[in-house]
Amino acid sequence: MYQALREHIEKITPLSEDEFAFVCTHFSIKKFKKHQFLVQEGEEVKYSYFVVSGLLKLVHTDDTGKQRVVSFAMEDWWESDYYAYFTQTKATMSLECIEDTETLCLLLEDYKKLCDSLPKMQRFFLEKANFGFIGSQRRIISWLTSNSKERYEQLIKQYPSLIQRVPKSLLAAYLGVSRETLSRLSP
Amino acid sequence: MYQALREHIEKITPLSEDEFAFVCTHFSIKKFKKHQFLVQEGEEVKYSYFVVSGLLKLVHTDDTGKQRVVSFAMEDWWESDYYAYFTQTKATMSLECIEDTETLCLLLEDYKKLCDSLPKMQRFFLEKANFGFIGSQRRIISWLTSNSKERYEQLIKQYPSLIQRVPKSLLAAYLGVSRETLSRLSP
Repeated sequence: MYQALREHIEKITPLSEDEFAFVCTHFSIKKFKKHQFLVQEGEEVKYSYFVVSGLLKLVHTDDTGKQRVVSFAMEDWWESDYYAYFTQTKATMSLECIEDTETLCLLLEDYKKLCDSLPKMQRFFLEKANFGFIGSQRRIISWLTSNSKERYEQLIKQYPSLIQRVPKSLLAAYLGVSRETLSRLSP
Repeated sequence: MYQALREHIEKITPLSEDEFAFVCTHFSIKKFKKHQFLVQEGEEVKYSYFVVSGLLKLVHTDDTGKQRVVSFAMEDWWESDYYAYFTQTKATMSLECIEDTETLCLLLEDYKKLCDSLPKMQRFFLEKANFGFIGSQRRIISWLTSNSKERYEQLIKQYPSLIQRVPKSLLAAYLGVSRETLSRLSP
Protein backbone atom coordinates (compact mmCIF):
# COMPACT_ATOMS: atom_id res chain seq x y z
CA MET A 1 0.00 0.00 0.00
CA TYR A 2 2.53 2.61 1.11
CA GLN A 3 4.95 1.80 -1.71
CA ALA A 4 2.45 3.26 -4.20
CA LEU A 5 2.43 6.50 -2.22
CA ARG A 6 6.23 6.59 -2.13
CA GLU A 7 6.53 6.13 -5.90
CA HIS A 8 3.87 8.79 -6.39
CA ILE A 9 5.65 11.36 -4.17
CA GLU A 10 9.06 10.52 -5.62
CA LYS A 11 7.87 11.50 -9.09
CA ILE A 12 8.14 15.01 -7.66
CA THR A 13 10.65 14.84 -4.83
CA PRO A 14 12.99 12.10 -3.50
CA LEU A 15 12.47 10.90 0.10
CA SER A 16 15.03 9.31 2.45
CA GLU A 17 13.99 6.16 4.35
CA ASP A 18 13.46 8.24 7.50
CA GLU A 19 11.42 10.86 5.67
CA PHE A 20 9.25 8.21 4.03
CA ALA A 21 8.66 6.49 7.39
CA PHE A 22 7.72 9.88 8.85
CA VAL A 23 5.32 10.61 5.98
CA CYS A 24 3.61 7.23 6.45
CA THR A 25 2.79 7.95 10.10
CA HIS A 26 0.42 10.69 8.88
CA PHE A 27 -1.74 8.37 6.76
CA SER A 28 -4.21 5.62 7.56
CA ILE A 29 -5.39 2.79 5.31
CA LYS A 30 -9.08 2.56 4.40
CA LYS A 31 -10.70 0.04 2.07
CA PHE A 32 -14.13 0.48 0.51
CA LYS A 33 -16.50 -1.73 -1.44
CA LYS A 34 -18.10 -0.84 -4.77
CA HIS A 35 -21.04 1.61 -4.23
CA GLN A 36 -19.76 2.60 -0.76
CA PHE A 37 -19.50 6.32 0.13
CA LEU A 38 -16.23 7.92 1.23
CA VAL A 39 -17.85 11.35 1.54
CA GLN A 40 -21.56 11.96 1.89
CA GLU A 41 -23.26 15.26 1.02
CA GLY A 42 -24.19 17.22 4.15
CA GLU A 43 -21.67 15.44 6.34
CA GLU A 44 -18.21 16.24 7.66
CA VAL A 45 -15.24 15.67 5.32
CA LYS A 46 -12.45 14.18 7.40
CA TYR A 47 -9.98 13.00 4.80
CA SER A 48 -8.18 13.68 1.59
CA TYR A 49 -7.90 10.30 -0.18
CA PHE A 50 -4.95 8.97 -2.18
CA VAL A 51 -6.22 6.12 -4.39
CA VAL A 52 -3.94 3.07 -4.25
CA SER A 53 -6.30 0.89 -6.29
CA GLY A 54 -9.86 1.22 -7.55
CA LEU A 55 -12.01 3.98 -8.96
CA LEU A 56 -14.06 6.80 -7.44
CA LYS A 57 -16.57 9.39 -8.63
CA LEU A 58 -17.09 12.83 -7.13
CA VAL A 59 -20.77 13.64 -7.59
CA HIS A 60 -22.79 16.86 -7.37
CA THR A 61 -26.57 16.56 -7.00
CA ASP A 62 -28.68 19.59 -7.92
CA ASP A 63 -31.97 20.72 -6.33
CA THR A 64 -34.00 18.55 -8.69
CA GLY A 65 -32.00 15.43 -7.77
CA LYS A 66 -30.06 15.36 -11.04
CA GLN A 67 -26.54 13.99 -10.56
CA ARG A 68 -23.42 15.23 -12.34
CA VAL A 69 -19.95 13.71 -12.12
CA VAL A 70 -17.49 16.48 -11.21
CA SER A 71 -14.48 14.16 -11.52
CA PHE A 72 -13.27 10.58 -11.47
CA ALA A 73 -10.27 9.38 -9.46
CA MET A 74 -8.30 6.22 -10.10
CA GLU A 75 -4.88 4.91 -9.08
CA ASP A 76 -2.37 7.65 -8.15
CA TRP A 77 -5.02 10.37 -7.93
CA TRP A 78 -6.10 12.38 -4.91
CA GLU A 79 -9.74 13.09 -4.28
CA SER A 80 -12.10 14.67 -1.77
CA ASP A 81 -14.65 17.47 -1.52
CA TYR A 82 -11.72 19.87 -1.11
CA TYR A 83 -13.74 22.98 -0.36
CA ALA A 84 -15.38 21.21 2.58
CA TYR A 85 -12.07 19.60 3.58
CA PHE A 86 -10.02 22.80 3.67
CA THR A 87 -12.73 24.99 5.20
CA GLN A 88 -14.02 22.25 7.54
CA THR A 89 -17.58 22.75 6.38
CA LYS A 90 -20.18 20.15 5.42
CA ALA A 91 -19.79 18.34 2.11
CA THR A 92 -21.73 19.70 -0.89
CA MET A 93 -20.72 16.70 -3.00
CA SER A 94 -20.43 12.98 -2.45
CA LEU A 95 -17.49 10.69 -3.16
CA GLU A 96 -18.47 7.13 -4.05
CA CYS A 97 -16.79 3.89 -5.21
CA ILE A 98 -17.31 2.73 -8.80
CA GLU A 99 -15.06 -0.27 -7.98
CA ASP A 100 -13.69 -1.76 -4.74
CA THR A 101 -11.13 0.83 -3.70
CA GLU A 102 -8.07 0.97 -1.42
CA THR A 103 -7.01 4.40 -0.19
CA LEU A 104 -4.49 6.14 2.03
CA CYS A 105 -6.29 8.83 4.01
CA LEU A 106 -4.95 12.11 5.32
CA LEU A 107 -6.67 14.21 8.01
CA LEU A 108 -6.46 17.99 7.47
CA GLU A 109 -4.58 18.21 10.76
CA ASP A 110 -1.99 15.71 9.49
CA TYR A 111 -1.78 17.47 6.12
CA LYS A 112 -0.88 20.67 7.95
CA LYS A 113 1.60 18.90 10.24
CA LEU A 114 3.27 17.26 7.26
CA CYS A 115 3.57 20.61 5.45
CA ASP A 116 4.98 22.34 8.52
CA SER A 117 7.51 19.68 9.45
CA LEU A 118 8.74 18.59 6.03
CA PRO A 119 9.14 21.45 3.49
CA LYS A 120 9.59 18.97 0.64
CA MET A 121 6.12 17.57 1.31
CA GLN A 122 4.75 21.10 1.25
CA ARG A 123 6.52 21.48 -2.12
CA PHE A 124 4.95 18.19 -3.24
CA PHE A 125 1.43 19.34 -2.32
CA LEU A 126 2.08 22.73 -3.94
CA GLU A 127 3.00 21.03 -7.21
CA LYS A 128 -0.07 18.78 -7.05
CA ALA A 129 -2.28 21.80 -6.32
CA ASN A 130 -0.79 23.87 -9.17
CA PHE A 131 -1.34 21.05 -11.67
CA GLY A 132 -4.79 20.33 -10.24
CA PHE A 133 -5.67 23.96 -10.93
CA ILE A 134 -4.24 23.74 -14.46
CA GLY A 135 -6.22 20.53 -15.11
CA SER A 136 -9.47 22.19 -14.01
CA GLN A 137 -8.71 25.22 -16.15
CA ARG A 138 -8.20 22.98 -19.20
CA ARG A 139 -11.56 21.36 -18.54
CA ILE A 140 -13.16 24.84 -18.43
CA ILE A 141 -11.47 25.70 -21.74
CA SER A 142 -12.78 22.47 -23.18
CA TRP A 143 -16.33 23.46 -22.08
CA LEU A 144 -15.92 26.92 -23.57
CA THR A 145 -14.52 25.82 -26.92
CA SER A 146 -15.79 22.32 -27.69
CA ASN A 147 -19.09 20.60 -28.31
CA SER A 148 -20.00 17.36 -26.51
CA LYS A 149 -18.56 15.16 -29.29
CA GLU A 150 -15.19 16.93 -29.10
CA ARG A 151 -15.19 16.77 -25.29
CA TYR A 152 -15.82 13.03 -25.48
CA GLU A 153 -12.96 12.57 -27.96
CA GLN A 154 -10.61 14.63 -25.76
CA LEU A 155 -11.54 12.45 -22.78
CA ILE A 156 -10.84 9.23 -24.71
CA LYS A 157 -7.48 10.60 -25.83
CA GLN A 158 -6.48 11.90 -22.39
CA TYR A 159 -7.62 8.94 -20.27
CA PRO A 160 -8.03 5.84 -22.48
CA SER A 161 -7.86 3.44 -19.51
CA LEU A 162 -10.51 5.39 -17.59
CA ILE A 163 -13.04 5.10 -20.43
CA GLN A 164 -12.79 1.31 -20.32
CA ARG A 165 -13.67 1.21 -16.63
CA VAL A 166 -16.43 3.81 -16.32
CA PRO A 167 -20.07 2.92 -17.13
CA LYS A 168 -21.45 4.95 -20.04
CA SER A 169 -24.17 6.52 -17.86
CA LEU A 170 -21.44 8.06 -15.66
CA LEU A 171 -19.45 9.27 -18.65
CA ALA A 172 -22.62 11.03 -19.82
CA ALA A 173 -23.02 12.62 -16.36
CA TYR A 174 -19.38 13.78 -16.54
CA LEU A 175 -19.71 15.25 -20.04
CA GLY A 176 -23.01 16.95 -19.24
CA VAL A 177 -25.01 15.10 -21.93
CA SER A 178 -27.83 12.56 -21.81
CA ARG A 179 -27.13 8.83 -22.02
CA GLU A 180 -28.80 8.85 -25.46
CA THR A 181 -26.60 11.66 -26.76
CA LEU A 182 -23.50 9.79 -25.57
CA SER A 183 -24.60 6.68 -27.50
CA ARG A 184 -24.68 8.75 -30.68
CA LEU A 185 -21.17 10.09 -29.93
CA SER A 186 -19.63 6.68 -29.22
CA PRO A 187 -17.50 5.23 -32.01
CA MET B 1 2.66 49.11 -4.89
CA TYR B 2 4.29 46.63 -2.56
CA GLN B 3 1.95 47.48 0.32
CA ALA B 4 -0.93 45.85 -1.63
CA LEU B 5 1.13 42.66 -1.91
CA ARG B 6 1.92 42.72 1.79
CA GLU B 7 -1.74 43.09 2.76
CA HIS B 8 -2.61 40.31 0.34
CA ILE B 9 -0.03 37.87 1.75
CA GLU B 10 -0.84 38.79 5.34
CA LYS B 11 -4.45 37.67 4.86
CA ILE B 12 -2.88 34.21 4.98
CA THR B 13 0.37 34.55 6.91
CA PRO B 14 2.01 37.43 8.86
CA LEU B 15 5.42 38.70 7.67
CA SER B 16 8.13 40.45 9.68
CA GLU B 17 9.71 43.61 8.22
CA ASP B 18 12.77 41.60 7.17
CA GLU B 19 10.69 38.85 5.58
CA PHE B 20 8.60 41.39 3.69
CA ALA B 21 11.72 43.17 2.43
CA PHE B 22 13.12 39.79 1.33
CA VAL B 23 9.86 38.89 -0.48
CA CYS B 24 9.90 42.22 -2.34
CA THR B 25 13.36 41.59 -3.81
CA HIS B 26 11.81 38.73 -5.85
CA PHE B 27 9.25 40.91 -7.64
CA SER B 28 9.49 43.59 -10.28
CA ILE B 29 6.96 46.31 -11.10
CA LYS B 30 5.38 46.40 -14.56
CA LYS B 31 2.69 48.78 -15.78
CA PHE B 32 0.56 48.17 -18.86
CA LYS B 33 -1.87 50.26 -20.91
CA LYS B 34 -5.43 49.22 -21.83
CA HIS B 35 -5.34 46.71 -24.74
CA GLN B 36 -1.66 45.83 -24.09
CA PHE B 37 -0.62 42.14 -23.91
CA LEU B 38 1.12 40.69 -20.84
CA VAL B 39 1.24 37.21 -22.39
CA GLN B 40 0.92 36.49 -26.10
CA GLU B 41 -0.14 33.10 -27.50
CA GLY B 42 2.83 31.19 -28.93
CA GLU B 43 5.38 33.13 -26.91
CA GLU B 44 7.35 32.48 -23.74
CA VAL B 45 5.58 33.09 -20.39
CA LYS B 46 8.09 34.74 -18.10
CA TYR B 47 5.95 35.93 -15.23
CA SER B 48 3.15 35.23 -12.82
CA TYR B 49 1.36 38.56 -12.31
CA PHE B 50 -0.12 39.95 -9.10
CA VAL B 51 -2.61 42.69 -10.02
CA VAL B 52 -2.15 45.83 -7.88
CA SER B 53 -4.67 47.87 -9.88
CA GLY B 54 -6.54 47.37 -13.14
CA LEU B 55 -8.25 44.50 -14.91
CA LEU B 56 -7.03 41.64 -17.14
CA LYS B 57 -8.60 38.94 -19.30
CA LEU B 58 -7.08 35.53 -19.99
CA VAL B 59 -8.20 34.57 -23.49
CA HIS B 60 -8.24 31.31 -25.42
CA THR B 61 -8.59 31.47 -29.21
CA ASP B 62 -9.78 28.34 -31.03
CA ASP B 63 -8.80 27.14 -34.53
CA THR B 64 -11.57 29.18 -36.13
CA GLY B 65 -10.39 32.39 -34.44
CA LYS B 66 -13.25 32.44 -31.93
CA GLN B 67 -12.18 33.95 -28.61
CA ARG B 68 -13.31 32.77 -25.18
CA VAL B 69 -12.49 34.42 -21.84
CA VAL B 70 -11.05 31.78 -19.51
CA SER B 71 -10.88 34.17 -16.58
CA PHE B 72 -10.72 37.78 -15.50
CA ALA B 73 -8.24 39.15 -12.97
CA MET B 74 -8.61 42.34 -11.00
CA GLU B 75 -6.99 43.81 -7.88
CA ASP B 76 -5.54 41.20 -5.49
CA TRP B 77 -5.73 38.37 -8.07
CA TRP B 78 -2.87 36.42 -9.61
CA GLU B 79 -2.93 35.60 -13.30
CA SER B 80 -0.83 34.01 -16.04
CA ASP B 81 -0.95 31.12 -18.50
CA TYR B 82 0.06 28.83 -15.64
CA TYR B 83 0.52 25.68 -17.67
CA ALA B 84 3.05 27.47 -19.88
CA TYR B 85 4.60 29.23 -16.86
CA PHE B 86 5.17 26.10 -14.77
CA THR B 87 6.26 23.87 -17.66
CA GLN B 88 8.22 26.64 -19.41
CA THR B 89 6.43 25.98 -22.69
CA LYS B 90 4.93 28.47 -25.16
CA ALA B 91 1.68 30.19 -24.20
CA THR B 92 -1.57 28.68 -25.50
CA MET B 93 -3.58 31.66 -24.19
CA SER B 94 -3.10 35.40 -24.13
CA LEU B 95 -3.33 37.76 -21.18
CA GLU B 96 -4.51 41.26 -22.07
CA CYS B 97 -5.44 44.51 -20.30
CA ILE B 98 -9.10 45.56 -20.19
CA GLU B 99 -8.00 48.65 -18.22
CA ASP B 100 -4.60 50.27 -17.52
CA THR B 101 -3.02 47.81 -15.11
CA GLU B 102 -0.22 47.84 -12.54
CA THR B 103 1.30 44.49 -11.62
CA LEU B 104 4.01 42.91 -9.52
CA CYS B 105 5.73 40.19 -11.56
CA LEU B 106 7.38 37.02 -10.40
CA LEU B 107 9.77 34.94 -12.54
CA LEU B 108 9.41 31.16 -12.11
CA GLU B 109 13.00 31.10 -10.85
CA ASP B 110 12.13 33.64 -8.15
CA TYR B 111 8.92 31.80 -7.27
CA LYS B 112 11.00 28.67 -6.62
CA LYS B 113 13.64 30.59 -4.68
CA LEU B 114 10.97 32.20 -2.54
CA CYS B 115 9.36 28.82 -1.80
CA ASP B 116 12.69 27.23 -0.94
CA SER B 117 13.99 29.98 1.29
CA LEU B 118 10.82 31.04 3.10
CA PRO B 119 8.48 28.13 4.03
CA LYS B 120 5.68 30.54 4.96
CA MET B 121 5.67 31.83 1.37
CA GLN B 122 5.45 28.25 0.14
CA ARG B 123 2.50 27.85 2.50
CA PHE B 124 0.99 31.04 1.09
CA PHE B 125 1.29 29.80 -2.50
CA LEU B 126 -0.08 26.39 -1.47
CA GLU B 127 -3.17 28.02 -0.01
CA LYS B 128 -3.65 30.18 -3.12
CA ALA B 129 -3.26 27.10 -5.34
CA ASN B 130 -5.70 25.00 -3.30
CA PHE B 131 -8.33 27.73 -3.44
CA GLY B 132 -7.60 28.37 -7.11
CA PHE B 133 -8.33 24.70 -7.74
CA ILE B 134 -11.54 24.87 -5.69
CA GLY B 135 -12.65 27.98 -7.60
CA SER B 136 -12.13 26.24 -10.95
CA GLN B 137 -13.98 23.19 -9.71
CA ARG B 138 -16.94 25.37 -8.71
CA ARG B 139 -16.99 26.89 -12.18
CA ILE B 140 -17.05 23.36 -13.66
CA ILE B 141 -19.97 22.47 -11.38
CA SER B 142 -21.75 25.62 -12.48
CA TRP B 143 -21.29 24.54 -16.15
CA LEU B 144 -22.55 21.06 -15.35
CA THR B 145 -25.60 22.10 -13.40
CA SER B 146 -26.72 25.54 -14.61
CA ASN B 147 -27.98 27.14 -17.78
CA SER B 148 -26.52 30.40 -19.08
CA LYS B 149 -29.07 32.55 -17.22
CA GLU B 150 -28.20 30.90 -13.89
CA ARG B 151 -24.46 31.17 -14.60
CA TYR B 152 -24.89 34.88 -15.31
CA GLU B 153 -26.81 35.38 -12.05
CA GLN B 154 -24.14 33.48 -10.09
CA LEU B 155 -21.45 35.70 -11.61
CA ILE B 156 -23.33 38.90 -10.68
CA LYS B 157 -23.76 37.61 -7.12
CA GLN B 158 -20.15 36.45 -6.72
CA TYR B 159 -18.36 39.38 -8.36
CA PRO B 160 -20.71 42.42 -8.43
CA SER B 161 -17.84 44.88 -8.89
CA LEU B 162 -16.39 42.90 -11.80
CA ILE B 163 -19.65 43.05 -13.76
CA GLN B 164 -19.61 46.85 -13.62
CA ARG B 165 -16.15 47.03 -15.19
CA VAL B 166 -16.29 44.34 -17.89
CA PRO B 167 -17.80 45.09 -21.34
CA LYS B 168 -20.86 42.93 -22.12
CA SER B 169 -19.15 41.30 -25.12
CA LEU B 170 -16.42 39.93 -22.81
CA LEU B 171 -18.97 38.72 -20.25
CA ALA B 172 -20.65 36.79 -23.09
CA ALA B 173 -17.27 35.29 -24.10
CA TYR B 174 -16.74 34.26 -20.46
CA LEU B 175 -20.19 32.69 -20.08
CA GLY B 176 -19.96 30.92 -23.44
CA VAL B 177 -23.02 32.62 -24.92
CA SER B 178 -23.53 35.08 -27.78
CA ARG B 179 -23.74 38.81 -27.15
CA GLU B 180 -27.44 38.64 -28.17
CA THR B 181 -28.19 35.86 -25.68
CA LEU B 182 -26.51 37.88 -22.90
CA SER B 183 -28.72 40.91 -23.72
CA ARG B 184 -31.79 38.74 -23.16
CA LEU B 185 -30.36 37.56 -19.81
CA SER B 186 -29.49 41.03 -18.50
CA PRO B 187 -31.87 42.49 -15.95
